[in-house]
Amino acid sequence: MWFMRQAGRSLPEYRSLRADVPMLDACARPDMVKEITLQPVRRYDVDAAILFSDIVMPLRAIGIDLDIKPGIGPVVAEPIREPDAVAQLRQLEPDDIPYITEAVGELVSELDSTPLIGFAGGPFTLASYLIEGGPSKNHERTKALMYSDPDTWDDLMRRLSGITIAFLRTQVAAGASAVQVFDSWVGALSAADYRRSVLPFAKHIFRELGSLEVPRIHFGVGTGELLGLLSEAGPDVVGVDWRVPLDTAAQRVQPHTALQGNLDPAVLLAPWEVVEERARAVLADAEPTEGHIFNLGHGVLPETDPDVVARLTELVHTETAR
Amino acid sequence: MWFMRQAGRSLPEYRSLRADVPMLDACARPDMVKEITLQPVRRYDVDAAILFSDIVMPLRAIGIDLDIKPGIGPVVAEPIREPDAVAQLRQLEPDDIPYITEAVGELVSELDSTPLIGFAGGPFTLASYLIEGGPSKNHERTKALMYSDPDTWDDLMRRLSGITIAFLRTQVAAGASAVQVFDSWVGALSAADYRRSVLPFAKHIFRELGSLEVPRIHFGVGTGELLGLLSEAGPDVVGVDWRVPLDTAAQRVQPHTALQGNLDPAVLLAPWEVVEERARAVLADAEPTEGHIFNLGHGVLPETDPDVVARLTELVHTETAR
Repeated sequence: MWFMRQAGRSLPEYRSLRADVPMLDACARPDMVKEITLQPVRRYDVDAAILFSDIVMPLRAIGIDLDIKPGIGPVVAEPIREPDAVAQLRQLEPDDIPYITEAVGELVSELDSTPLIGFAGGPFTLASYLIEGGPSKNHERTKALMYSDPDTWDDLMRRLSGITIAFLRTQVAAGASAVQVFDSWVGALSAADYRRSVLPFAKHIFRELGSLEVPRIHFGVGTGELLGLLSEAGPDVVGVDWRVPLDTAAQRVQPHTALQGNLDPAVLLAPWEVVEERARAVLADAEPTEGHIFNLGHGVLPETDPDVVARLTELVHTETAR
Repeated sequence: MWFMRQAGRSLPEYRSLRADVPMLDACARPDMVKEITLQPVRRYDVDAAILFSDIVMPLRAIGIDLDIKPGIGPVVAEPIREPDAVAQLRQLEPDDIPYITEAVGELVSELDSTPLIGFAGGPFTLASYLIEGGPSKNHERTKALMYSDPDTWDDLMRRLSGITIAFLRTQVAAGASAVQVFDSWVGALSAADYRRSVLPFAKHIFRELGSLEVPRIHFGVGTGELLGLLSEAGPDVVGVDWRVPLDTAAQRVQPHTALQGNLDPAVLLAPWEVVEERARAVLADAEPTEGHIFNLGHGVLPETDPDVVARLTELVHTETAR
């Protein structure tokens, strides 16, 4: 078990560390990456650490002018919408991200037997940020490009997939022992669109990552109708949000696919009895799955009380040890 | 066939009419409600008009201080989070909304044989705006109240359901010949939460509306896992967003339930060949359904070219006349 966004805004020690440091600066400083990644491991008896980073880091590392604006999210100075701009997106090299190699290497030796999960954004989500220029409710420009210029779309997806692969390879080379691809916003697509415009690239990513011989997790929020396709892309584990019970999800994924999830993060704001009841329900739903990693259905909410997270970790460990 | 948000920001004649009139003022002026409701009917050969209004109108009508801020959405001056504040929410009376009665009456006589669909927000969505104080990504305060104080939650839902019923009754009494309940954000809930905390109130709404003897449509976005429950609430028609193919949706709803939907609104930003192909796919998917109302899977996007909407209307009419 671990928690998406276990490192971050719900921890007072994180907020005080980040007080004067912009998000992307923190992600590029090995000392901060290390400290923030370790903070939840100190507090909670989780079974894995997740590298503190941001999905747009590799884009910044190849020279794209972008920043994370508090309260908004990633903002790209010059959105990428034309074939020429796409053609200028270059591949990510390990030398572009020395701070990742350094942070991961030091983390792995400090974490000792606790595994470190590496992570990267998926190509649809990265494409949406680049095309829209920031977070988007409807992804309209992204879909418009996808529908109207499939050649440019494919070129963009090919380049972003290469970047995702390189970002994760660097993390595994430095010692990460599992990887998660967050294609956060693919849930905005119909299954037909995902199959045609994203799946070939997701397959390529998981095939390439296969040679690293570490467990590969694939997750996007609101992907109930896409679980079969996310699994067809070839990961070892599919992450599920709270909208789909795990026993239902187990019927939608390929055989021999483990599931990760899926307590609604908002449940952690409820009284303990509710948290306990719902966590037990997740464990019960997980029984028919072929392997289960307990997690939330999306990231820990900023308002969450860390003591509830600690207590939940204990509960799940006690229950699953039986 | 009709289009959610067919009246609104995609029409230049709407934008010029609304240039100096705030949203909720426009919704309270019978002349503007009439004109805006009629604009798309003049442009498109749609089979129904939808009353131009906003789901927060009945809340303002009972005295809640709220406004719609451009680029943000509804903002409630004093969010409702305590039992006392909930207990002060009063029922909506027809006298609170004379402009609705007037606008609907005049519209119905002007529309002649084209039916007018009345509409209202569903209780979860109204609750979320009241509790969060505005639009919310995660509905955390709403869920926290739902989990931690079920009595206050139930009281709030009971009051909001009464308001929804009264708002729609007034519209039907004035001549509306169908109603749609938009519980826009229920897709944020797991099926277990919907069943426990919303379904009883949705059932009450559709039971009460049953005596009006007009078709009742129930819709929320991102509700793939809830379609069975939305249908169990008792509407004649369930609206489906673009994430679930209509033939799949048909298997999830109760027998004898018609479906409405479900072209991705972003498809209308694509070249015509793509629009045509996807619209035909929706019609093909709709074949096993027990009744189908062609619509988008969510509202018309502001960037949409009205000529594409007109052409799509023609295509669907030609195809379904065969």
